[in-house]
Amino acid sequence: MARPPARNAVGRPRRSSRRVLEEAAAELFLEQGYPGTTVDQIASRAGVSRNTFFNYFGSKSDVLWVDVDAALAGLERALAAAGDAPATDVADAMPSLQAALLGIAEERSNGAVPWALTQIELMDTAWELQASGLERLLRLQAVLRVSLARLAVRADELTIRSAAAALAGAIVAGAGAWAAAGVGRGELGDYLRRAIAPVVDGYGRALARIDGPSSS
Amino acid sequence: MARPPARNAVGRPRRSSRRVLEEAAAELFLEQGYPGTTVDQIASRAGVSRNTFFNYFGSKSDVLWVDVDAALAGLERALAAAGDAPATDVADAMPSLQAALLGIAEERSNGAVPWALTQIELMDTAWELQASGLERLLRLQAVLRVSLARLAVRADELTIRSAAAALAGAIVAGAGAWAAAGVGRGELGDYLRRAIAPVVDGYGRALARIDGPSSS
Repeated sequence: MARPPARNAVGRPRRSSRRVLEEAAAELFLEQGYPGTTVDQIASRAGVSRNTFFNYFGSKSDVLWVDVDAALAGLERALAAAGDAPATDVADAMPSLQAALLGIAEERSNGAVPWALTQIELMDTAWELQASGLERLLRLQAVLRVSLARLAVRADELTIRSAAAALAGAIVAGAGAWAAAGVGRGELGDYLRRAIAPVVDGYGRALARIDGPSSS
Repeated sequence: MARPPARNAVGRPRRSSRRVLEEAAAELFLEQGYPGTTVDQIASRAGVSRNTFFNYFGSKSDVLWVDVDAALAGLERALAAAGDAPATDVADAMPSLQAALLGIAEERSNGAVPWALTQIELMDTAWELQASGLERLLRLQAVLRVSLARLAVRADELTIRSAAAALAGAIVAGAGAWAAAGVGRGELGDYLRRAIAPVVDGYGRALARIDGPSSS
């Protein structure tokens, strides 16, 4: 268990250990790449013990996903709130999801690009990153599926599952394109809106057919 | 290196070592689960050496994906052939992909459910399975993206990427629902058609707008 090294004392403003660990990890990933960085190095740079690292994160890859995980949690809360509203027309289900998604993107529009998205080219080669990315993709799909099942009660399971999977795929593609666009990339929300609009359109029409003609 | 055990001699018709390894693996996965089965056990059951196993498969998980990998290779060939045809209207790009996909599903309609799809509930817990599944998902996305970029030359990168990702998501959802439906599940193609139709519809409309009004 490494002891806090002296370098940590050099005038950083006090922040939570979690934030300090995130920043230490980000520095190290930038300096020497993700695969070459160990949890011990991150803890040492942050001036905390390895045990402290594992109090905050389950694994090295978790540090990459902090912003994504926060966005996922925010989306889940927003969709749960939407689901508590009086039942809407099934045809409104996809636009409701879209609104919740774009709301989360806007909330986070001042944030940096999540580290995980800057490492996307590594996803092809780093097994651990792949698995950690798939874990988030599956969580995103599950959040969308649960919400869609509640918003579109008369829709069949296959339509709901495929809509959630298609939407999750388009979201990841949009976020990835945004991250890859470099400085001056503009707003995440604009990328997401363009990426998911055809999914919202296509499944929106499919759900409207299930629901039949409506006056809303 | 295990030697071929006597049990292998008991009257199995001669087949390629690859097929025998697949069947041995399938038996063992069924008997004792995927996580509890080792490469050594598979080789031993098949009556071949561990080295022979690795002549045919890169890892234990590869055995699960044999049918999926064959379908992916078939899809890649079918789409390459479609891309060699004279350039079509951009609005035809999504229907062309759909036709190629459903063609592959039909070709394989007499096959058993791929082992990987029967293990989908394990995907949440088994890291190696997750990574091996993501590898195939990324390959499917890449095949669709390359093909779509060729079929819809004037479409922007973001639309192409998100269409490929959404389509891949819907395909996996459709195939998963088919596998999960149990005996009497019917045709894979019917599930895929229902799962992907809204994606084909939504991105087809988006691409048609890029292309402008057309007489085709």
